[in-house]
Amino acid sequence: MSLNILFHSAPHRWADYRTVLPDALAAAGVDARLSTDLPPEEADYIVYAPAEDRLDLSRCGRLKAVLSLWAGIEGIADDVPREIPLTRMVDEGLTAGMVEYVTGHVLRHHLGMDAHIVNPDHEWRPVPPPLAADRKVTILGLGALGTACGRALAGLGFAVSGWSRSPKEIDGIRCHSADDGLATALDGAEIVVLLLPLTADTECVLDGPALGRLADGAVVINPGRGGLVDDDALLAALETGQVGHATLDTFRVEPLPQDHPYWSHPRVTVTPHVASETRPASASRVIAENVRRAEAGEPLLHVVDRSAGY
Amino acid sequence: MSLNILFHSAPHRWADYRTVLPDALAAAGVDARLSTDLPPEEADYIVYAPAEDRLDLSRCGRLKAVLSLWAGIEGIADDVPREIPLTRMVDEGLTAGMVEYVTGHVLRHHLGMDAHIVNPDHEWRPVPPPLAADRKVTILGLGALGTACGRALAGLGFAVSGWSRSPKEIDGIRCHSADDGLATALDGAEIVVLLLPLTADTECVLDGPALGRLADGAVVINPGRGGLVDDDALLAALETGQVGHATLDTFRVEPLPQDHPYWSHPRVTVTPHVASETRPASASRVIAENVRRAEAGEPLLHVVDRSAGY
Repeated sequence: MSLNILFHSAPHRWADYRTVLPDALAAAGVDARLSTDLPPEEADYIVYAPAEDRLDLSRCGRLKAVLSLWAGIEGIADDVPREIPLTRMVDEGLTAGMVEYVTGHVLRHHLGMDAHIVNPDHEWRPVPPPLAADRKVTILGLGALGTACGRALAGLGFAVSGWSRSPKEIDGIRCHSADDGLATALDGAEIVVLLLPLTADTECVLDGPALGRLADGAVVINPGRGGLVDDDALLAALETGQVGHATLDTFRVEPLPQDHPYWSHPRVTVTPHVASETRPASASRVIAENVRRAEAGEPLLHVVDRSAGY
Repeated sequence: MSLNILFHSAPHRWADYRTVLPDALAAAGVDARLSTDLPPEEADYIVYAPAEDRLDLSRCGRLKAVLSLWAGIEGIADDVPREIPLTRMVDEGLTAGMVEYVTGHVLRHHLGMDAHIVNPDHEWRPVPPPLAADRKVTILGLGALGTACGRALAGLGFAVSGWSRSPKEIDGIRCHSADDGLATALDGAEIVVLLLPLTADTECVLDGPALGRLADGAVVINPGRGGLVDDDALLAALETGQVGHATLDTFRVEPLPQDHPYWSHPRVTVTPHVASETRPASASRVIAENVRRAEAGEPLLHVVDRSAGY
């Protein structure tokens, strides 16, 4: 008997997956019926990326796993009963895009590009920046994304530190962990990049005291989750000059409301949640591989630890 | 008898070298008298980076070599008699800085950052860029700088092609050479980076026909030499949209005159010759090593081929 897979997401997304996901399933040897309007009760697997239309999964007796299309699952974890495995998306396309965004914006701030991009006075003031080796960059979060970004920055010569909840060892990155380690990782950092999952522990991790540890005029780059930043503390630190610039891609409310002070602040750059996105072709391979694994009784990839929250 | 080394450059530069160059010479085991006001006739070596005050080197009977502090020597080559070896500067600090500038500006244009950096209408339009693997970057010039930049971009996943006068093979870079190869390298390129030496052969290498080969709306990045670009042709290509943006660091006249159309063009970014510069500490080690080699009868590093002009 073939499997039933429900693809539940915003309608426009199905257009991206309707061809590549069946291809990936076939390539993985999975025989399945893939549909966007199957009742959840009849689904063996649910590919899950809801807009407003969340599902009630409490009576899905056949359901073997819920497979998220997103890297961050804090918004949907509560929809999935704890006994059902929930997987996050770890997609090589998403990782590559994030490395490009983070490397690009770190170099932008390192090189002081903005002063040349907007230079109405046509000022010619040749002051070369320091070399990357003399620039301290700290990445909060050393999962798949943080590690890949840290490696790329270290490859360009930056002095990279990182912080994660549990201890890690990564070539080229000075790794810190636990609460003490967070303070050490932030002390004197000139550019800080947020790539943590959003959990009760990481909510507002970049608050006033944390911002106070950064180098004077430091740059904050947040392509992670809006909730990682205490917005009021960041705006206050921008006022005092403790933070020189913030480049933000994620916000508590998206789209960022038109009256939000971030839009009009001269030293804040808003990017509209484009740092990276899941790419249908590579994400479909991850989904198909997880269905294959589940059917073969093998451990799933990227299962969310429900007590840690990511 | 100790050697006489004349350090001839703009006065402010001596301040950067007066400590690190003697240290480097001592570390290389060279016993020398280093001075800024020795008559050229008494110099065994001249470290040469003149501002306006060019030297007459035609009667310098003791002179064993002229050691430039610059990577590009087209402005000083005529000062040095052909029988005296002239060396270019190939400095790890200069190379690192150039890689940072080129990688940063390629990513800036690849990611479309400018639309977010300057966004007065607070427009939230989440359109993620393609991945680097789908972005064609071509580097003209595969010397020390072009090769290092190409490797860094290929490491980030960009589809990198390169062109050089003589054939090269470099991992991760599709290498082209000679006149036919130039056309192939430019065909459909979305971002082109100029890192050629300026010679009679490369003057205006990016002229109208060359610009016409690029992808529609291509980006030109010139951290090489102003003379590599036909300025009128570039301005015309910006008008038609054939070129979408130009980020220029080097110009025929520097500082770029206030009335130059590049300053006011909305799709030109002028950076004030800061893409990279020789770093005193690492450059001093190169100078000292070359003096040591010359005294030991070993071949000098980075000798200019006077017929090729670089």
